[in-house]
Amino acid sequence: MSVTAAQGFTAAGIAAGIKGNGNPDLALVVNNGPRRAAAGVFTSNRVKAAPVLWSEQVVKDGEVSAVVLNSGGANACTGPKGFQDTHATAEKAAGVLDIGAGEVAVASTGLIGVLLPMDKLLPGIEKAAAELSAHGGEKAAIAIKTTDTVHKTAVATGDGWTLGGMAKGAGMLAPGLATMLVVLTTDADVDSATLDKALREATRLTFDRVDSDGCMSTNDTVLLLASGASGTTPEYGEFADAVRTVCDDLARQLIGDAEGASKDIRIEVVNAASEDDAVEVGRSIARNNLLKCAIHGEDPNWGRVLSAIGTTKAAFEPDRLNVAINDVWVCRGGSVGEDRDLVDMRYREVRITADLAAGSESAVIWANDLTADYVHENSAYSS
Amino acid sequence: MSVTAAQGFTAAGIAAGIKGNGNPDLALVVNNGPRRAAAGVFTSNRVKAAPVLWSEQVVKDGEVSAVVLNSGGANACTGPKGFQDTHATAEKAAGVLDIGAGEVAVASTGLIGVLLPMDKLLPGIEKAAAELSAHGGEKAAIAIKTTDTVHKTAVATGDGWTLGGMAKGAGMLAPGLATMLVVLTTDADVDSATLDKALREATRLTFDRVDSDGCMSTNDTVLLLASGASGTTPEYGEFADAVRTVCDDLARQLIGDAEGASKDIRIEVVNAASEDDAVEVGRSIARNNLLKCAIHGEDPNWGRVLSAIGTTKAAFEPDRLNVAINDVWVCRGGSVGEDRDLVDMRYREVRITADLAAGSESAVIWANDLTADYVHENSAYSS
Repeated sequence: MSVTAAQGFTAAGIAAGIKGNGNPDLALVVNNGPRRAAAGVFTSNRVKAAPVLWSEQVVKDGEVSAVVLNSGGANACTGPKGFQDTHATAEKAAGVLDIGAGEVAVASTGLIGVLLPMDKLLPGIEKAAAELSAHGGEKAAIAIKTTDTVHKTAVATGDGWTLGGMAKGAGMLAPGLATMLVVLTTDADVDSATLDKALREATRLTFDRVDSDGCMSTNDTVLLLASGASGTTPEYGEFADAVRTVCDDLARQLIGDAEGASKDIRIEVVNAASEDDAVEVGRSIARNNLLKCAIHGEDPNWGRVLSAIGTTKAAFEPDRLNVAINDVWVCRGGSVGEDRDLVDMRYREVRITADLAAGSESAVIWANDLTADYVHENSAYSS
Repeated sequence: MSVTAAQGFTAAGIAAGIKGNGNPDLALVVNNGPRRAAAGVFTSNRVKAAPVLWSEQVVKDGEVSAVVLNSGGANACTGPKGFQDTHATAEKAAGVLDIGAGEVAVASTGLIGVLLPMDKLLPGIEKAAAELSAHGGEKAAIAIKTTDTVHKTAVATGDGWTLGGMAKGAGMLAPGLATMLVVLTTDADVDSATLDKALREATRLTFDRVDSDGCMSTNDTVLLLASGASGTTPEYGEFADAVRTVCDDLARQLIGDAEGASKDIRIEVVNAASEDDAVEVGRSIARNNLLKCAIHGEDPNWGRVLSAIGTTKAAFEPDRLNVAINDVWVCRGGSVGEDRDLVDMRYREVRITADLAAGSESAVIWANDLTADYVHENSAYSS
């Protein structure tokens, strides 16, 4: 499972002392080749953390040999010193692994605006390197957790090759990308251009359609590394499907473990004039705090769905809108539809279908409800 | 105070039985002239309630003689029957007051997607008409409350003339306009074009810059009626100032009574390249749930301010951003600034200043924190 499911990869996860509570906080993932192809997708937030600025450069040439990931600090909004720290992290890993610093991607997660304790992080890299193992994937997944209650891994297998991955993310989950660190590894023998294409197609439809709390991170990083160790080059379609399957699996795990959430809300917008319209409407619904509260209260308050749709620029006529909650069409023609008392909302998954009656395009956005626990988790301490 | 502070107006507020709990739920405001000039500003939500569609037509000719307002039901997303009900409401008031239905504006607030109990509302209009009084303004303000904990009124006086008003609104408070019903009345002798100009200028800088919870209503209505009863025509600037002062006063009262809020957050964006940029950045900060939680927890988590700024299209360079919380510049040059422990957040008002270092324009947006009480109020029952 995780980043060591595929051949050619070793990983480790250790406690370097970055977190005050002694929990694991440093992960190292190494591609032992023979190939070191890589692709990456990063946050579209214009305020980017130092490790994002660094790793964007590292993946540009399509080669990554190792990834250092830390929890316990985002190294975002930390100025020139923060960037120097990321650089020093890559240099340290390069020295220990006998590779070039330009082959080392770095990813960080935690509180924004605080410098990392480099006196703990740098020795931690040595310690992690000493523990690198072909069975280290799970420990690596554990070490990148912040407020995640469980670690997240997924795997897919092809004919003679494997794709696995790990993810973290529980708050600041919203598109562009959702707030997350993700590392995917495969032993398929594919080049970086293929990785890049498959990864962008997959993230556009998975991580980028997760909108737990409307807040976009400064640190989102999704990396896909290929070792070629299986000696197999799959058909593009088969490979792309596997990447999307693993991304979708991890994205769902992020939603299922979102801070304080009690419901996973699947918002499907159908009969839109364009896919962009469908996504815009889906996100508007996903971000409506009043609706998120209603879902938490198991109240099929479809008026809040309509008021959210009404704030968008999508093509629709108000008196042609239909809305179903858990398959009961509570709103038809922009007005009262089936009896709202028919809606059963006892289960964790809630399905909202918004029919724009304006075309034939659709999109699915995943969101969470808004709960007192979310407020508590994000007000009781800095995170 | 309220809508009867100015000469030439009578009002009433009664319990018609629209609300199940017997609280006041119907208000009537009548302009007895000699002038019946009027202007209105309505929600920019594309899903508009029946009374909004009706009243937009009524104010088009610049004349309104009476306003019927009800709480206990928004009459939004109620289809053709909902519009017929609004029409019947105006006809009933017209009959009782011996005026034309086209002179009667209607405003409703409450749950979306439920038809109004017309068997209670129509007799209520007769009852309210019988209680019309030059001292009825306060009762009218009370009758339009929904989850408001207090009724909201304001008044300004000029040289020989008066402007007063009432407002309701506690949830679904966000621009375009914020969710609210507002009626302003004046005995100044001004025409409808002047009223319209002054009202639009005022709402743009007051109600439209209130963003309590990011949710835009289907029912927002702000009306300004002039009776001319004072016989005084003020200078335009003096009059516009009074309209803005009263709107600002009422807008602040809305924020101060927002559902579940424990903090009023004044977000001032300065040194923006344009006013539009300043407003976009201010709203992005205002709507960031993680920041709203942090403010609730009295945590000066400026990283969440920067991550919100980073999602906008405004002109700025990340490494030139400065942020102050309660006048302590906790972020300078996009990085760590003054000691965050210097920030005192014990009081209800919290001031966030975001310096974009990109120009000389500015804007102020008012928001609220996100609390467990907000979640409770909006999940425990339909509203």
